[in-house]
Amino acid sequence: MDSESFRACGKTVIDYLADYMDNIRDRPVLSTVKPGYLYEMVPSEAPVKGEHWKTVIADFEKVVMPGVTHWNSPQFHAFFPTGNSYPAIIGDILSNGIGCVGFSWITSPACTELEVQVMNWLGKILDLPREFLNESEGPGGGVIQGSASEATFVCLLTAKDRTTKRIKALNPTMTDGEIKAKLVAYTSDQSNSSVEKAGLLGSMPMRMLKADISGRMTGAILAEAIAEDVAKGLIPCYVVATLGTTGTCAFDCLEELGPICNKNDIWLHVDAAYAGAAFVLPEYRYLMAGVQYADSFDVNLHKWLLVNFDCSALWVKNATHLVDAFNVDRVYLKHSYQSQDPQVPDYRHWQISLGRRFRSLKMWFVLKMYGVEGLQAHIKKQIHLADMFGKLVNQDPRFEVVTVTMGLVCFRLKGDNVWTKNLYERLMASGQIYLVTANVRSRLVIRFVVCSRLTEEVDVQFAWNEICTQADLVDSERDVTPVSICNGLTETWPKDMECELTTATAIVVKSLSQG
Amino acid sequence: MDSESFRACGKTVIDYLADYMDNIRDRPVLSTVKPGYLYEMVPSEAPVKGEHWKTVIADFEKVVMPGVTHWNSPQFHAFFPTGNSYPAIIGDILSNGIGCVGFSWITSPACTELEVQVMNWLGKILDLPREFLNESEGPGGGVIQGSASEATFVCLLTAKDRTTKRIKALNPTMTDGEIKAKLVAYTSDQSNSSVEKAGLLGSMPMRMLKADISGRMTGAILAEAIAEDVAKGLIPCYVVATLGTTGTCAFDCLEELGPICNKNDIWLHVDAAYAGAAFVLPEYRYLMAGVQYADSFDVNLHKWLLVNFDCSALWVKNATHLVDAFNVDRVYLKHSYQSQDPQVPDYRHWQISLGRRFRSLKMWFVLKMYGVEGLQAHIKKQIHLADMFGKLVNQDPRFEVVTVTMGLVCFRLKGDNVWTKNLYERLMASGQIYLVTANVRSRLVIRFVVCSRLTEEVDVQFAWNEICTQADLVDSERDVTPVSICNGLTETWPKDMECELTTATAIVVKSLSQG
Repeated sequence: MDSESFRACGKTVIDYLADYMDNIRDRPVLSTVKPGYLYEMVPSEAPVKGEHWKTVIADFEKVVMPGVTHWNSPQFHAFFPTGNSYPAIIGDILSNGIGCVGFSWITSPACTELEVQVMNWLGKILDLPREFLNESEGPGGGVIQGSASEATFVCLLTAKDRTTKRIKALNPTMTDGEIKAKLVAYTSDQSNSSVEKAGLLGSMPMRMLKADISGRMTGAILAEAIAEDVAKGLIPCYVVATLGTTGTCAFDCLEELGPICNKNDIWLHVDAAYAGAAFVLPEYRYLMAGVQYADSFDVNLHKWLLVNFDCSALWVKNATHLVDAFNVDRVYLKHSYQSQDPQVPDYRHWQISLGRRFRSLKMWFVLKMYGVEGLQAHIKKQIHLADMFGKLVNQDPRFEVVTVTMGLVCFRLKGDNVWTKNLYERLMASGQIYLVTANVRSRLVIRFVVCSRLTEEVDVQFAWNEICTQADLVDSERDVTPVSICNGLTETWPKDMECELTTATAIVVKSLSQG
Repeated sequence: MDSESFRACGKTVIDYLADYMDNIRDRPVLSTVKPGYLYEMVPSEAPVKGEHWKTVIADFEKVVMPGVTHWNSPQFHAFFPTGNSYPAIIGDILSNGIGCVGFSWITSPACTELEVQVMNWLGKILDLPREFLNESEGPGGGVIQGSASEATFVCLLTAKDRTTKRIKALNPTMTDGEIKAKLVAYTSDQSNSSVEKAGLLGSMPMRMLKADISGRMTGAILAEAIAEDVAKGLIPCYVVATLGTTGTCAFDCLEELGPICNKNDIWLHVDAAYAGAAFVLPEYRYLMAGVQYADSFDVNLHKWLLVNFDCSALWVKNATHLVDAFNVDRVYLKHSYQSQDPQVPDYRHWQISLGRRFRSLKMWFVLKMYGVEGLQAHIKKQIHLADMFGKLVNQDPRFEVVTVTMGLVCFRLKGDNVWTKNLYERLMASGQIYLVTANVRSRLVIRFVVCSRLTEEVDVQFAWNEICTQADLVDSERDVTPVSICNGLTETWPKDMECELTTATAIVVKSLSQG
C-alpha cells in the first residue's frame, strides 16, 4: 500500500467511523452470531497474493461487523463504559504513525515527557495529593499502564519486593523464599476478579474479605483479618481497596483502611478503575477521603474518561520501590540510574514490559479538546442519566431499586430471584439492550450502566420501555415456575455472565443451584 | 468534537501521516532536544476550556514532533525494527472506532474468532508444528500478547504453576511455598533483558548461562547447569531459548535443548521476537529445527512483520496449563468452562489483564493486504540490504565485520575498543544515523540494523558514507587516547546504551572501566 492508497483508504475509514457513530442506534447492540460463525466465512489460510484495500474493507463489513457487540451503542448498559472519543482516536492515529517504542528517554523524549506532564495534569484534575505527582519534590509520579489488572499486579509485585527486603533486614537469617511464603494480601469479596488474579499470578494468597452490608471493606473488617494472620505468624503485605466496586459501585472506607495499612507497613493500593473518574467533580471527592494514606492509586481513562483502551493511569507515592522491584540493570548501572534526572523517568522500570506505545498522545488530545469543563460535563451528564433511570424504576411498583451510584443503577423485580432472572433472560433474548446481572447479598439484580458517551435521555427512556415490555410478559407468568431453573441452572446461564462479574455471578449460580 | 469535525480532522491527520512518511528523510532521525524540553513548552495544568482541533494539531507539530526519535526513518539502524505499515494503521483505526473490550466471546465474537483465525494463518505461514494451532485436535492455540516480555512472563508463571502441581502430586507433604522456593529457570547471557526481568518478577532465579563462542546456548551448557541444580536439590522449571539474540542475532540450539527439557519436564519457551519473522521464508527454517520440542513460541509482529506495536504472537502447545494458572473462575465455573467449545477460547485466561483490545484486526489487515508473498518480499529485501552493508564494510580494510545475520550487521574498527567507541561517539554527535553498540566477547561492536520498511539501497549507502566520514576523523586521531576514557566511562556513556542492550552494554561499561 503506497501513500496515495493510504490517503484514499484512510479517508474512507474516517468517514466509515463517523457514519458508524452517527448511525450506531441502527445496529443491534448485541451480536447475534453463533460460536464459530467466522471460521465459516474466513478461509483457513492467509492469501498468497496481497488484496486491494477495497476488498479488505468490504470483508470487514461482511465478516467482522456482524460479530461485533457495540460497546459504544447507547443501548449498551453492561459491565462498565469503555472509553471512546474522537479526540482519543485522532491521538492514537498519530501515535501509530510515529510508531516509536518509548522504553527510554532517548528513544523518543516526547513519549516520556508528555506522559509525565499529562499524568500531572490528570492528578491535579482529580485533586490527588501532591506527593503522587511527578512534579513534587519527592519520589512520586504517574505512569500509564495497560489496564487496572496490570496496575494491581505491578503494585503487588512491588509490595512483595518492598516487604521482603524490610523483613530480611529485620531477620537476616530468613531466606527470601521463607519470607515470601508468609506474605498475605487483602481485598473485599466485592473487588474485581483481576485483584484475585493478581494474587494468583503473584503467588500471594489474596484474602477476599466479606464486605459489610453496603458492599464496603471497613477498617474493622481489615483489622480483624490482619490480627488473625499475624497470630498465625503470617506477614500482611498488600491491601487493594476499591473505590467503585464492579457489582454495585460501593466505596471502601479508605479513611479507616489507610491508618491500619500505614501502621503495619502494608502497601495500600486504590483501585478506582471506574469511579475514580467522578473525582473530576469536587462534590464527589469526599468518597476518596483517606487517599493520602495510599501508596498507589489507579483509574482507567479507558473506562469513564473518554480515552480509548488501553490507558490506565497509575500514580505511586514512591517510585523508587517500583524501580527497585522491576529494574534488572540495578547491579551494573546503579550509578548511572541514580544520576538520572527524576523528571525523565525510564518508564520501562515502572511496568512489566520493556516496550511501550506512545499512549499519552491520546490522553493529551482528550484533555486538551475536552478541557476540564468538558470532562466534568460528561461525568455530570452520565450521572444525571443514571438518576433519571433510577427514578423511572422507582415509579413502577413491581420493581425495587437496590442502589444508584454514579452511572450505575442496580434494580430487580420484587420477590423471588427467579422473576428477575426470567426478566433478564427475556431481555437478552430480545436483544434490544445489553445488561448484565450481579448478586447483592443473595438478591439477583440487573445492572443498568450508562456506558456510551452518545447516551441521551431518549435512550434511557428506550431502555426503560423495553424493560417494561419484558416485565409485562414476566407478569403473565408470575404463577408458573420457569422450567429452566429445574433443569440445572449452570447449563443455561448465559455466557456473558462469566465476564467481569465472574465471582459475583458464580456465587449466584452456586446459591441458586443449591437452593 | 462532533462527527463533522472528526471527518475534517481525521482526514487532515491521514494526510499528515502520509506526508510524514513521504518526507521522513528530511527530519533528523534522532531527537536533539534536552531533557525537560517539553515541560517548558506545555503548561503545568490542563486547559479548563476545550481547545479546537486545529490548535491541538498545531501544538502536536510544535511540542511533540521535535521530541520524536523517528523509528521509521530509513536512517534508524538501532535496536531492532518497530513494525509499522499503512494496513496496520488502518486496521487499528477501525479497532479504535469499534472500541470493544473482548474479554469473553460474547463481548464481541469477532474479536475472539478473528484472533484464533489469524493466529492459525500466521502459524501456518511460519510452518509451526500443527499442535500449536488452534485448529488442531489437541489443546494448542495462539494468542496475541502485548509484548515478548509479557509472553515470556506469562509462560514463566504457567511453568511455575504446572511444575508446582506436578511436584506436589509426587510429594504431597511439601507446601507450595517450599516447592516454589526450589524452582529455577535458565536462559543464556545473550537473551533479552526482559527474560531476566520475568525471573525477577516471577520470583524464580533466572540463571544467565554463558553462551558459546557463537553466542548460542547449547545442549551441553544447559545440561551442565541442570545437573548442578538437581545435585543441590533444586527443581529445574523453565527454559527460555532465543532465536535471534538482541546483541548479535545468534540462534540457540533448539534441537539440543528440546530433548533435555522434555526429558526433565521443563517448560521450553522460544523467544523468537525478532528473527522468528524470517521463518516466512522456507530457506531459514533450518534455524528453528527442534521447535517441535517447545511448549511455547513467541514472535513479535510489531518488530519485523509490519504490524504496529503492540502485537506479539504467542503459541502454546497446551493451553490448558495456561488457563489452569490464570483462571480465577476455576472453583465455581469449572463445569461451564469445560463444556466450552475449544474453538472459542476465553482469552482473558490466556493473559495477565482482564481487558483486551481488538488487536487481531491490524494483523488481519497486514496479512490480507501484503499476502504471504508480500511478507516474504519484505523480509528478503531487508536481509539483502544488510548483506549489502556487510559487503561495504568488508571492502574497507580499517573495519572488520563480526557478524551478519538477518537484518543485523555487527562491525567495528580493527584494534582496541577505544577506536570503535570514538567512532560511535562521533556518529551519535553527528546525528545523521542512529545506531547502538553491543559487546561481543569483550569486543565493542556497532550494530547496524535494517529497521524501517522504507529503507532502500540508497539509505544503506548514505549510512556507510556517514560512517566513513566519521572514521576518517577517527583515523586522524589514531595516536591520541581520547580523554573521555580516562575521565570515567560511565559518566559519558550515552543514555541510549541503557536500552534494549542493557546487559551487554553494562558488561562493556564495566570491563572497559576496569581495564
